[in-house]
Amino acid sequence: MDWQAEITAAAGRIRPHVRRTPTLTVDLPGFGPVEMKLEQMQHTGSFKARGAFNTLLSKPVPRAGVVAASGGNHGAAVAYAAHSLGHPAKIFVPEYAGPAKIALIRAQGAELEVVPGVYADALARAEAHAAATGAMQIHAYDAPATVAGQGTLALEWEEQGLQADTVLIAVGGGGLIGGALAWLGGRRRVVAVEPELAPTLHRALAEGPEVQVSVGGIAANALGASRIGRIAYDLAKAQGTPSVLVSEEAIASARDWLWRNLRQLVEPAGATALAALQSGAFRPEKGERVAVLVCGANPAPDPLG
Amino acid sequence: MDWQAEITAAAGRIRPHVRRTPTLTVDLPGFGPVEMKLEQMQHTGSFKARGAFNTLLSKPVPRAGVVAASGGNHGAAVAYAAHSLGHPAKIFVPEYAGPAKIALIRAQGAELEVVPGVYADALARAEAHAAATGAMQIHAYDAPATVAGQGTLALEWEEQGLQADTVLIAVGGGGLIGGALAWLGGRRRVVAVEPELAPTLHRALAEGPEVQVSVGGIAANALGASRIGRIAYDLAKAQGTPSVLVSEEAIASARDWLWRNLRQLVEPAGATALAALQSGAFRPEKGERVAVLVCGANPAPDPLG
Repeated sequence: MDWQAEITAAAGRIRPHVRRTPTLTVDLPGFGPVEMKLEQMQHTGSFKARGAFNTLLSKPVPRAGVVAASGGNHGAAVAYAAHSLGHPAKIFVPEYAGPAKIALIRAQGAELEVVPGVYADALARAEAHAAATGAMQIHAYDAPATVAGQGTLALEWEEQGLQADTVLIAVGGGGLIGGALAWLGGRRRVVAVEPELAPTLHRALAEGPEVQVSVGGIAANALGASRIGRIAYDLAKAQGTPSVLVSEEAIASARDWLWRNLRQLVEPAGATALAALQSGAFRPEKGERVAVLVCGANPAPDPLG
Repeated sequence: MDWQAEITAAAGRIRPHVRRTPTLTVDLPGFGPVEMKLEQMQHTGSFKARGAFNTLLSKPVPRAGVVAASGGNHGAAVAYAAHSLGHPAKIFVPEYAGPAKIALIRAQGAELEVVPGVYADALARAEAHAAATGAMQIHAYDAPATVAGQGTLALEWEEQGLQADTVLIAVGGGGLIGGALAWLGGRRRVVAVEPELAPTLHRALAEGPEVQVSVGGIAANALGASRIGRIAYDLAKAQGTPSVLVSEEAIASARDWLWRNLRQLVEPAGATALAALQSGAFRPEKGERVAVLVCGANPAPDPLG
């Protein structure tokens, strides 16, 4: 796959529909200047709108519309993108998506069904729905159009003047880091950050891509894929991507820091990459310039709920 | 006063100490692209750090340190700036500052005293403290060094590529809008936005600068000065600054919009400028490019309190 071409095409395709999210440089105590991109300011509060729009704009959408399984953020993005482009959307979420994300998806105008069990159960229902109705399934992370859409974030960050040698990115199923690896392709180092309680890529890199991982913890509804996407796995394996794990406490502390010091109220997944730096799970070399991606802000409870 | 020179000097002085806050363009339903600057990401959650640092770096600070009266945000900024530069700080706040802002000021390492009554009562106590101890008083809005410091925000926004013909800015005592008027000086139109329940500049423009205004409402602890600063008044009068008022409902609705659509959780004062646009209190001409300043995010209750 020619990822440079795919991501460049995706960026052109989705540009009228997504927000160019802001970047800034923050002086981080103990680390000096750290670049950040505030992708949680994207439509529906996470990077997921990029992949959703790219998928919907890449091929004809059937009259039955689109269907997706999601821990919450992907479902909200698919619902938003489908609504923007005039397609019906059906979203299956596992119970652990929680009321704030369920309300967010409903607010985008989608039909929503809460499925007992975990993400894999919701995915099975989405697949059955696609088979029965002909609706287009938009995979949350392991489809080329999804990965290329998320990759536009890295392209955009470079257009905005990204300087860093190393970019820290939180990993769930691998759509976001897959896109970043596909775009940056060895030009910059990408570090994968996962919660200790959802070490899906970490385990896959050690044990192979088919490993099923038990997932939980405060970021589970965003980072809790139990199997890594194959696209991300292959890219990470090929590039020797470093993978680090962070504790629940480190995530909560980074989230607290982002609010106290930057007035950015994010969800735990949105603070996970920063947690790797602040906790010492990732230690930059002397002179290594580091960037942190803030990727999602659909917290529970909703502060204005 | 040569404001261009003062503000340029202030920008050089405070640059190592303040954050270059991000800007972005948001497609606002019904209005098209609107530029925003997210100054609530400044240290201590508002623009106030600019004026505080400029004051402390403009003249020798006595051993007794600094003293300020504040509805909350200025006090937090003075405490932060004083602490950063190694000076003791004493802050007087009126009761209505509220627990979130009081906790914020204490967290900066300042000595804090809560004064029964309103802002003017806290100001009287601050003046008495300055007279008794020799501490340097940092006025929240009506001193040239404060106004020049706040003016660096407009300078910085232009450096970041501000395009707008018209910039909407919330007004309390007038430090922020004074700085913007002093820098932009007729090159762009500045529109003053105040809550209907705190119409201090609005009344002064109609009745004269000495008018005492009763203030209240949800933004009172940030925008509730009962008399407008003379520097801002003179600049606004000279430039024929349009002044508009917004309802409590419009402020609450704009605040809700900023969270729902941009994941920016701000305080009511931080959403007041946007409220003028969304409510129709200010209606741009056809083709008029509009910018909105988001200026503060120290909400109560603290969402992670």
